[in-house]
Amino acid sequence: MKILVLNCGSSSIKYKLFNMDTKEVMAQGGVEKIGLKGSFLKLTLPNGDKVMLEGEILEHTAGIEYILGVLVSEKYGCIKSLDEINAVGHRVVHGGEKFNKSVLITDQVIEKIVECIDIAPLHNPPNLKGIRAVSELMPNAPQIAVFDTAFHQTMPDYAYMYGIPYQLYKKYGIRRYGFHGTSHRYVSQRVCEFLGVSPEGKRIITCHIGNGGSVTAIKDGKSIDTSMGFTPVEGLLMGTRSGDIDAGVVSYIMDKEMIGTASISTLLNKHSGVLGVSGVSSDMRELEAAVAEGHERAILAEQMYFYRIKKYVGAYAAALGGVDVIVFTGGVGENQATCRAGVCEGLEFMGVSIDAELNKVRSEEAIISTSDSKVKVVVIPTDEEFMIASDTMQILSETK
Amino acid sequence: MKILVLNCGSSSIKYKLFNMDTKEVMAQGGVEKIGLKGSFLKLTLPNGDKVMLEGEILEHTAGIEYILGVLVSEKYGCIKSLDEINAVGHRVVHGGEKFNKSVLITDQVIEKIVECIDIAPLHNPPNLKGIRAVSELMPNAPQIAVFDTAFHQTMPDYAYMYGIPYQLYKKYGIRRYGFHGTSHRYVSQRVCEFLGVSPEGKRIITCHIGNGGSVTAIKDGKSIDTSMGFTPVEGLLMGTRSGDIDAGVVSYIMDKEMIGTASISTLLNKHSGVLGVSGVSSDMRELEAAVAEGHERAILAEQMYFYRIKKYVGAYAAALGGVDVIVFTGGVGENQATCRAGVCEGLEFMGVSIDAELNKVRSEEAIISTSDSKVKVVVIPTDEEFMIASDTMQILSETK
Repeated sequence: MKILVLNCGSSSIKYKLFNMDTKEVMAQGGVEKIGLKGSFLKLTLPNGDKVMLEGEILEHTAGIEYILGVLVSEKYGCIKSLDEINAVGHRVVHGGEKFNKSVLITDQVIEKIVECIDIAPLHNPPNLKGIRAVSELMPNAPQIAVFDTAFHQTMPDYAYMYGIPYQLYKKYGIRRYGFHGTSHRYVSQRVCEFLGVSPEGKRIITCHIGNGGSVTAIKDGKSIDTSMGFTPVEGLLMGTRSGDIDAGVVSYIMDKEMIGTASISTLLNKHSGVLGVSGVSSDMRELEAAVAEGHERAILAEQMYFYRIKKYVGAYAAALGGVDVIVFTGGVGENQATCRAGVCEGLEFMGVSIDAELNKVRSEEAIISTSDSKVKVVVIPTDEEFMIASDTMQILSETK
Repeated sequence: MKILVLNCGSSSIKYKLFNMDTKEVMAQGGVEKIGLKGSFLKLTLPNGDKVMLEGEILEHTAGIEYILGVLVSEKYGCIKSLDEINAVGHRVVHGGEKFNKSVLITDQVIEKIVECIDIAPLHNPPNLKGIRAVSELMPNAPQIAVFDTAFHQTMPDYAYMYGIPYQLYKKYGIRRYGFHGTSHRYVSQRVCEFLGVSPEGKRIITCHIGNGGSVTAIKDGKSIDTSMGFTPVEGLLMGTRSGDIDAGVVSYIMDKEMIGTASISTLLNKHSGVLGVSGVSSDMRELEAAVAEGHERAILAEQMYFYRIKKYVGAYAAALGGVDVIVFTGGVGENQATCRAGVCEGLEFMGVSIDAELNKVRSEEAIISTSDSKVKVVVIPTDEEFMIASDTMQILSETK
């Protein structure tokens, strides 16, 4: 069975074609700068080489048409006909309270995704564009929606409600939704397979640490709390996002700088976080280099970055009544040993003990805790696209 | 030695006169509704009876004059002459980064308190009015300022900095300051005396839980993190304050409700928290009554209230590398057994074990953990006024 996975952003579309019989990636790449000058398609060939194809890509349907053309092309293709693709799985960012799992896309489903635009104005519209383009270009292919928020729909109300007038929740759906759900779900399931244990009865904390980042508390395989909230700006210090901040600071900056809601949102989403504090970069590799050179604000940003993850691990251990497994994933979580060590330092009191040698691992599944550590600390590279493909296959088999 | 303690708010002044030789409270009360219709002075007589004296109190000097008059009055007084008062200690809310301890008030000190008005526009001006009134009415009495923020000045930068552009910290002093410092300092010192241990080497978490509330992590007697931030709206769910909230929610509500910074600030400070979620009351006693009647939103608000304290205890245990002592104080912390039980439930993994029988205590110093609990959990009624009087005496003795 061949499944195409699409992740449609406002000006980019990423794709991966899976052969689910062998679990192999047959093709992958993306189009970028849709509607902008210099748009192009980039793909990775089976031998690892990267190819860049320029082209005028004015909107999403043209972008997906370009991708499909490359998939069947003689030079770079891997299939003969689009009919070989059994289904298309879409990443959809926001499912609100309407979706607690992946679903086959129908007209009703599209309607509900449209209804969620109000709380995800930047993300759901391009996701919908992708869905509509596929309907047009591959009218016979079943499409499946996999939501970033769905995994977190199991949170209890006392974890997802904010301390604001209840009417605002009823009126606008303002609550914690959480994101990165597909990644948290994937690594929390995968770590149980990897350790040979059942998710039942297990208390797992998954740390998805990349340019964006979130921590999730998982009990019996279900998300019970997560650090991102109504929007992805809450929680950890991120590459360019502030993370947790006093609400009073938001209005104070607006008053002092005489800016409106759009500008404060841009400030907190694009110019804050590691970049804003350090003044160096939003990239943790560049930050680490600056730290090595003794750059004071880089050191501060790195300490804040680690410290906030550590506090969430502590908070969620309390929420879970203890922790059995801590998972690190995401670009930084999978690769940066200093981050993992910084987070776990001082957590011996809750049974965490890291092995410095094992912690050197990069981008592969590995236990990095000592053999006598009560809490297993594990690196699991995330694979959201594979999870989307798996869900797609699962739903196809159920609906047949 | 007799010390008068004043806490001047925008429309009220609370006072307590201490005889520090015997540590007794000689007189206490307050004026309320300053500048408003129906202003009055309320005092508690030594036998516990309360007396209300009406009077037109147009501004702070008149209010303090009224208080001083009552102190020396034949009917309700306890001293013959104001000369018997050796010094006046003032609660000052915001010392910014300028004050890390209590100080004798001089012209330079007043200047610095004035400089902090910008970050405490509601609190420092009435505090200053009180200081100026005392200068006028008791020109020979030394005055001491005790800051709500001073105790938290020992926080490391990675705990007090927000993830916003560094320039905003330099330009406006936007950072975590923390409040309730006098209370956290008092109970953290007092609990060590009570347990007969030294603060050195001890990891203490103090939970000041009242209508406002904050949690502080204390290492070697020093604050290393606290839940209130740049303003007192951050952190726990409070009576009418939202506590922690996604910054994206702030601008979202502003857009949807078409309100400005002043209104969102009022919404999050006055109409949120336990009151906003439950729709019942901001008072935890009334909330508990509603919970007992099965009121759904009251139950939700209570669960949120406990859960957020629990998460801070977990986060700060991680920050401290474990915890030796947890202290409950403040109106709710001292009196509400269900709150203390709710917070400590599930913290067995970090060595916390509560004795249900001992936990029934109200408003008195008591250990409520089991004898084999690794972490001592203790109730310590707070006494900020006594702490202010003690600081005042201490500084007098140093400056002589």
